[in-house]
Amino acid sequence: MSHEFDDATAPSRNADGSWDTPIPERWDIMGNANGGYLMARVAAAMRAECGRRDPVTVTMHYLSPAPAGPARTECRIVKDGRRLAVVSGALVREGRELVRCTGVFGDVDVDAGDRHVTVAPPDFPPFAECAPRETSPGAPPLGLMSRLDMRIVPEDRAFMAGGATGEARMRGWFTFRDGRPVDTLGLLLAADSFPPTLMNLFGPRGWVPTVELTVHVRAVPVPGPIRCVFTTRVVQGGMCEEDGELWDESGTCVAMSRQLALAPLAQPQ
Amino acid sequence: MSHEFDDATAPSRNADGSWDTPIPERWDIMGNANGGYLMARVAAAMRAECGRRDPVTVTMHYLSPAPAGPARTECRIVKDGRRLAVVSGALVREGRELVRCTGVFGDVDVDAGDRHVTVAPPDFPPFAECAPRETSPGAPPLGLMSRLDMRIVPEDRAFMAGGATGEARMRGWFTFRDGRPVDTLGLLLAADSFPPTLMNLFGPRGWVPTVELTVHVRAVPVPGPIRCVFTTRVVQGGMCEEDGELWDESGTCVAMSRQLALAPLAQPQ
Repeated sequence: MSHEFDDATAPSRNADGSWDTPIPERWDIMGNANGGYLMARVAAAMRAECGRRDPVTVTMHYLSPAPAGPARTECRIVKDGRRLAVVSGALVREGRELVRCTGVFGDVDVDAGDRHVTVAPPDFPPFAECAPRETSPGAPPLGLMSRLDMRIVPEDRAFMAGGATGEARMRGWFTFRDGRPVDTLGLLLAADSFPPTLMNLFGPRGWVPTVELTVHVRAVPVPGPIRCVFTTRVVQGGMCEEDGELWDESGTCVAMSRQLALAPLAQPQ
Repeated sequence: MSHEFDDATAPSRNADGSWDTPIPERWDIMGNANGGYLMARVAAAMRAECGRRDPVTVTMHYLSPAPAGPARTECRIVKDGRRLAVVSGALVREGRELVRCTGVFGDVDVDAGDRHVTVAPPDFPPFAECAPRETSPGAPPLGLMSRLDMRIVPEDRAFMAGGATGEARMRGWFTFRDGRPVDTLGLLLAADSFPPTLMNLFGPRGWVPTVELTVHVRAVPVPGPIRCVFTTRVVQGGMCEEDGELWDESGTCVAMSRQLALAPLAQPQ
C-alpha cells in the first residue's frame, strides 16, 4: 500500500546525477512547504545517495520560502565511513537554493551499547483524549494538516482561539492521517510540524521563521503515535531556540530537536 | 596587545580565494585540535568571508582528527540576506576535508525585541573557589589547557582522579589564560572545551568523539569568565547528546550548544 508521505519524499535520480524532488501541494503552512517536510524531503534524497538506512543527525538551514513546484536536490557524500556517512544536500529551484542541509546517516540501533536515560517521557493525556489541531479562527486551512492527525494537549490549545497560555510550550501527538507508521524519516517531519511555542507565549503575532534546525534521531519508533514536547527557554535578541523531545509508545526517546528561529516583534497596538 | 586566540584564529586570504588557516600547536587534546577550537578557526574565516560581526548559529560536522599542520578553509556565501548571512565552510588539508561547517552570521544584539527567559544561570561556586582543570593521573599535559584557565566545579571533579560521579554533568568556568576577553567567537571554543560529561558518568573509558556540534550565540558576553554547564540526558544506541548552556557575569545566557557524540563502550574487564 502506498502512503502519502512516501509518495511525497521518494527521490528519483535525474540524468545529471541530482535527485528529482518536487514539492507537492498540501505539505504547506499558508502556502509554503513546512520545514519538517522539507527536511524529510531532502534527507530522503541524501539517504538514497549514501545508501544508509537511517538519518542519525540532520541539520537544515532555511534560505527561502518553498511553495509547491519543481525542485531538485544536489547531494554530495562528504565522508563515507564504516559506521556513518556524512552527506551534504541542497534543494534547488531554478538555480536558487531553498534549503541547505548536512546530515549523518547510518543504522540507528537503540540496543547498541549502554543505556542511561535520566529524562522521562512527558506526562499528558493519551492520543484519544487530545483533540485535533485546528487552525486559528478565520485562517485558511493548513495543507499540512490534511496529511497529519496531530493532537494538541488541552492546556496548550490557547493559541487555537487566538489566545496565549503565557508559557512557551507546545505538547501533543504526531501521526500520519493515512496510517503510515512513523519511521526515522517521519521523525524529521514530526520535529518541525507543531505550531511554534511562541504562539502560546505571546499569542498571535506572526510567524516564527526557522533559521536552523537540527534533529538527532535516537531510536527507531515502535508503531503508534509519537508523543512530542517543544519548549523555549530563552527569547532574546529577536531570536528564540525551540527544543523538542519525541517519544514513542514504548517510552523510548526517539528524537531530540533544536532550532533557532526569529522571534516576531510585538505588533503595534 | 596580541592575544593567542586571535593569532590562532585570524584568517588570511590565499591567492585562490580560500583562507589560510593552519592548525597551530597546543590547541589540542592528546594531539588532535580541540573541536571548539576548530569551530572557532573555521567560523573566523567564514565571518571574514561574509563581513558580518558575529556568529549567530554554527554547525560543524567532524570528519577526521586534525593534528597541528597546514590547512585552508574554503568558504561559500550561500545567502547574503539583509539581517543574516549563511555561509558554508570546509577545513581542508592535502585535498581532504577535516571538518564541514555551515554558519549563520550577523549582529547579535541581546536588546533587540522582547526578552523572556525562563531558565536561570546554574548556581555553583565562583571562579576563584573552583580549582583549575587537571589532566588525569599519568596522562600527558593537554595542549589546550596551556591556553585556557578553566575551572571545574568541586562536585564535578571526580573524573580528574579517574573516578566518576555517576552523573553525566560537567560544570565550570571558561577564560583565556592570557586575559583575552571572551567574545562571540570565543564562545564557540568554550562550547566544546570542557571534558565530556560521560567522563563523570562512566569514569575513564576512552574518548567521546563529536559527530555534530551546533552552537547558538545568544548575546555578546560582558567581560569576565563564562559560567558553563553541560549535561547529557540520553545515552543509548552508542550515542549521546551533550547540551551546553553558557552564561556571562551579568547573568545573561550567551550561548546554547548541543552535540551528538559517540558514546564509548564499556571496556572489557
